[in-house]
Amino acid sequence: MPKAGNFFADLPDASEGEATQILAAFPGARVERIVSLGQASPPGFWYDQAWTEWVVVLSGGAGLLIEGEDAPRALRPGDFLEIPAHVRHRVEWTEAGQPTIWLAVHGERIPA
Amino acid sequence: MPKAGNFFADLPDASEGEATQILAAFPGARVERIVSLGQASPPGFWYDQAWTEWVVVLSGGAGLLIEGEDAPRALRPGDFLEIPAHVRHRVEWTEAGQPTIWLAVHGERIPA
Repeated sequence: MPKAGNFFADLPDASEGEATQILAAFPGARVERIVSLGQASPPGFWYDQAWTEWVVVLSGGAGLLIEGEDAPRALRPGDFLEIPAHVRHRVEWTEAGQPTIWLAVHGERIPA
Repeated sequence: MPKAGNFFADLPDASEGEATQILAAFPGARVERIVSLGQASPPGFWYDQAWTEWVVVLSGGAGLLIEGEDAPRALRPGDFLEIPAHVRHRVEWTEAGQPTIWLAVHGERIPA
């Protein structure tokens, strides 16, 4: 039977750390909800993934830095970004006063 | 460079028909925005897909009937549903007074 839920319900308390939940995992993709509250990537840390990630911010706000760009992109509700495999990126900031809720779709791993 | 946009911007006028746009397509998955305005699946029509679809309603409301269930599931903002391959389903109704905006993630085709 189909798995169902509400994306905005039962939000975890992210005050102690970013909270990631897998909402669905099926052939081709994994869908996650990520709740941030003021967190950022550690200094010097870059995500470098072997798959494409498509991410949309649905609440709050965040600054996402793509390697090689001059400044982080400010993501507000509805803003989405497709991050190809091996495009290094980091979260420079998320709002401290309210949760930032991300919906992330991770594609399949691309063989090296 | 990463492809970016806003999920809620530049909404098409769906008064003449449901409007589907591909926001991203990458190894494993395709992400679509679907805007409905009162449409429903034609009588007797069932979607029967060879891949998993994960769908979330982010605005408006819709009734989605899964074959074998007694009544359509009412989907309100935030409600999501994972529809496995070959689980037949149809849209019984969408709100007529405001757009219903769906975010759909289609996984990869499963070989028969």
